[in-house]
Amino acid sequence: MLNYVANQWKSDEESIINIKDVVPAMGQVAYEVVRTYNRLPFALKKHYTRLKNTLTFFSMVPSMDFEELAQFISEGIEKNSEKNADDFRIRIIQFPSESEGMCLLFEKLEMRTLKDIYELGVRVSLSPYLKPSGDIMPPSLKVYGSSWITLTKKLMADNYDLILLNEKGNVTEGTFTNIFIIKNEKLITPDIESGVLPGVTRENILCLARAMDIPIEERNVKSWELFTADELFLSHTSMGLVPIRKIEDKVLIEDFTDGLTRILLDNFEGFVMTRDENWEGIQ
Amino acid sequence: MLNYVANQWKSDEESIINIKDVVPAMGQVAYEVVRTYNRLPFALKKHYTRLKNTLTFFSMVPSMDFEELAQFISEGIEKNSEKNADDFRIRIIQFPSESEGMCLLFEKLEMRTLKDIYELGVRVSLSPYLKPSGDIMPPSLKVYGSSWITLTKKLMADNYDLILLNEKGNVTEGTFTNIFIIKNEKLITPDIESGVLPGVTRENILCLARAMDIPIEERNVKSWELFTADELFLSHTSMGLVPIRKIEDKVLIEDFTDGLTRILLDNFEGFVMTRDENWEGIQ
Amino acid sequence: MLNYVANQWKSDEESIINIKDVVPAMGQVAYEVVRTYNRLPFALKKHYTRLKNTLTFFSMVPSMDFEELAQFISEGIEKNSEKNADDFRIRIIQFPSESEGMCLLFEKLEMRTLKDIYELGVRVSLSPYLKPSGDIMPPSLKVYGSSWITLTKKLMADNYDLILLNEKGNVTEGTFTNIFIIKNEKLITPDIESGVLPGVTRENILCLARAMDIPIEERNVKSWELFTADELFLSHTSMGLVPIRKIEDKVLIEDFTDGLTRILLDNFEGFVMTRDENWEGIQ
Amino acid sequence: MLNYVANQWKSDEESIINIKDVVPAMGQVAYEVVRTYNRLPFALKKHYTRLKNTLTFFSMVPSMDFEELAQFISEGIEKNSEKNADDFRIRIIQFPSESEGMCLLFEKLEMRTLKDIYELGVRVSLSPYLKPSGDIMPPSLKVYGSSWITLTKKLMADNYDLILLNEKGNVTEGTFTNIFIIKNEKLITPDIESGVLPGVTRENILCLARAMDIPIEERNVKSWELFTADELFLSHTSMGLVPIRKIEDKVLIEDFTDGLTRILLDNFEGFVMTRDENWEGIQ
Repeated sequence: MLNYVANQWKSDEESIINIKDVVPAMGQVAYEVVRTYNRLPFALKKHYTRLKNTLTFFSMVPSMDFEELAQFISEGIEKNSEKNADDFRIRIIQFPSESEGMCLLFEKLEMRTLKDIYELGVRVSLSPYLKPSGDIMPPSLKVYGSSWITLTKKLMADNYDLILLNEKGNVTEGTFTNIFIIKNEKLITPDIESGVLPGVTRENILCLARAMDIPIEERNVKSWELFTADELFLSHTSMGLVPIRKIEDKVLIEDFTDGLTRILLDNFEGFVMTRDENWEGIQ
Repeated sequence: MLNYVANQWKSDEESIINIKDVVPAMGQVAYEVVRTYNRLPFALKKHYTRLKNTLTFFSMVPSMDFEELAQFISEGIEKNSEKNADDFRIRIIQFPSESEGMCLLFEKLEMRTLKDIYELGVRVSLSPYLKPSGDIMPPSLKVYGSSWITLTKKLMADNYDLILLNEKGNVTEGTFTNIFIIKNEKLITPDIESGVLPGVTRENILCLARAMDIPIEERNVKSWELFTADELFLSHTSMGLVPIRKIEDKVLIEDFTDGLTRILLDNFEGFVMTRDENWEGIQ
Repeated sequence: MLNYVANQWKSDEESIINIKDVVPAMGQVAYEVVRTYNRLPFALKKHYTRLKNTLTFFSMVPSMDFEELAQFISEGIEKNSEKNADDFRIRIIQFPSESEGMCLLFEKLEMRTLKDIYELGVRVSLSPYLKPSGDIMPPSLKVYGSSWITLTKKLMADNYDLILLNEKGNVTEGTFTNIFIIKNEKLITPDIESGVLPGVTRENILCLARAMDIPIEERNVKSWELFTADELFLSHTSMGLVPIRKIEDKVLIEDFTDGLTRILLDNFEGFVMTRDENWEGIQ
Repeated sequence: MLNYVANQWKSDEESIINIKDVVPAMGQVAYEVVRTYNRLPFALKKHYTRLKNTLTFFSMVPSMDFEELAQFISEGIEKNSEKNADDFRIRIIQFPSESEGMCLLFEKLEMRTLKDIYELGVRVSLSPYLKPSGDIMPPSLKVYGSSWITLTKKLMADNYDLILLNEKGNVTEGTFTNIFIIKNEKLITPDIESGVLPGVTRENILCLARAMDIPIEERNVKSWELFTADELFLSHTSMGLVPIRKIEDKVLIEDFTDGLTRILLDNFEGFVMTRDENWEGIQ
């Protein structure tokens, strides 16, 4: 796979950075993960905006403007398409040091067996580690190196993801997912101030629900509400919506052939593919 | 300067790591910073033990045992001594990926003008960012990438360091220092559970104070206690004790010719140089 | 019913106190509620000790010593037994003003229909109000006038009691009950520091469990653990153990004919009636 | 002194209530304290509104409407004026039981030696007890029996009042006062959500400052800001503004002959006496 590193296209093996440049600044390595649909980068403008926002906290700016980024991404997709997958997972990483600048790391988009996940749902559990709420840290900061994430990942076992609570015992998010509750025909999800990254997929789901007149509550969610939910699902970039069958050892639902999760799932791809905002700046 | 990187001695320019190995694991880059006194690494065993403890959280072990580390450090000091400084600041970094393993990065030990600092003291202020207490995160985890540190560093201005409070409004530590209060002839410092790294220099100071029969309180310290202190000082590896003259715009003390800070400062180097524990495993 | 008020035995109608004495000190009206079994006051010494402990916070002492209290309680039981119930619920109230002193208010012990409760269990829900944990307030303070209790009582509806969480989202207790979880053959209950009154019945249950070699965990309990429990029960002075059938709208268990709750319930009365500590100072 | 108790005018000695009515409902005894200026009740409408608001939490309503209350207050002032003080401190207490209803307790308005206080200022310290913030409890609830208040009052020593911090280490208020900071020509005071009763005097001071174009900050106030203030003052119903000379053992200011505190103090009585809102419904 070719990656854009230190201002050049390089193979995986050649994708190197200087340790003395990078190590002292490790707390401010801002990043985004973008996926492609049909070789087009999804919601690239939204990711770019979020990256820019994270960098603002560090008094930095992206080392490429949006048009340049879109250009390089498109170039990378083309270069990597021949011998590789049709669709990609692209990490956009902005280092603080000038010599590294903005790097684009390309990977094959790994799709888990869709049928299994979408029809049977996955298992999640709760992490014993806490994610600080917005009272303690700006929730929209997307950087590498949050220890609650790293520590939680070690405990993943046979869960699809683990959900972190904040210091008030309220639900935040998974290590790479956002979480949604269906209760009494309403769609409930923790608000940003609970300590939630404003995920691009999360935002698309809320927008879809609004378009379908499903009532939405973005608010503090107590941990026990996960156990009295009618349905639960996760969201993340690579997979969109992921239904949850089991939380801890509680079987939530036997199948996902009806219910709001199913309705949202069936409409999601069509919705995001045709929503103009998701393709802003991409021809 | 030569560094030990990916199992080889390399110049600064050649000290490179593969970005695709390192980036996904950035939250678990454990590290320690060791200084030398007269070309001998100070309290290396304590640092090694702390590194091992951090790695335990990630179910990892150091990729060198203590004797190997001591051997490589000693080799590095020798290699770098000819054309470089007499004393060094050495970062010991343990990457999760096998190919990088444990890296040793050597730098000249930068000493600020001692006379100024030790006689006039420095200025500190309070950070607007919060460090989570031990209720939220294991305080002894020493990893790169804590965003409260990175965000605070951006606001340093003319302060020697900024002190972070935790979510309860209690004092924790600076971005690279621990803080101590002298009040009514007692030595007061935040306890580990407040959200304090168990600093090696901190521990040496507490041990020195105990040896001198100075009463010690390790406990929750309210932020306002910094402003009603008789004296304040910082501690960190490179400098030992650093007296504080000003906190925010409050002048705390005019000179440091007497008081407990002066007494501890005058006895510190002699104490640490002769305390056996600090030289364990170093001939 | 006769009550001991302002140093005299008085009928309910005559049981009056001066409002100007009492109102300014309303935050320090310490109290205990004792029940009788067969006209003997249960665990009176324990209640007296706890009352004394609460008063210590206010730099007060009980206005009767234990022997006097036992004497007056016994006198009151005798006086009220003729025309009233066999068993009583007695409030011991210590006012800060000397003229009121320690008052003893007698009421008939209201027993709900035991069969229903013990065989079918009751419903509990979670209160939307928070009880401060031991980080904020001494948990062992038993005074009238905690607003979280008063506010919660207004929402009781068809619940037997409502359970309060603390500011960390952990379980504390009900408005008049303690709560216990059975999970994997272990007995789990929030520890005192979570913000739990050290209830006399709670202590008897833990002691019984210990005598029966049931493993016990007194610790932080996350709110969601109530929803993944195998069994749940409440405890309080008047009723001892009360099994829980439903938490919110989740049916926990269909019947209580076996399981640890049943075993504890069947052994409870025998245990407390014969445990010496519960009858200390009572002939 | 005559008081209105249980629907009758009664002497202090006759002002009695039934203990069995009152005790079980002690957590919901809402109250207000009103002072008179020239025998007219100050800001009675505001106090009535706040009382009503507290009662709403308990699903109660005041047992008198505002006109009745104003009528009874005026009657009480007249009855008590002959042999007593010219100005009064009146407690309005709403019991939950119908037989007690709303009680009006009259006391002589105790004025400390004004000259001393206004020219020399008073001493305050910080309470070791915490008042829960608005995250935990509705801050506007004014009831008897908050244990942090009772416990703090026991430690008053030679302080005019003790200031309570909340669980986040932020400043709330005193046991009977609100607190204000002057820093860089700005007036700073904790916001209601910090856990502050919306005091009537507090509101009048903010309104006066606004009228005088003094910049105002109502926000989270860290405890240490009390120690870096240019000036500090308290406010409460009986005395209006009270300058602070000493906080803990730190002398803040030597005299109050100039500065914003002086300016606000000199203008306060004139302002409140002529502000229409303060005399609404009083002829």
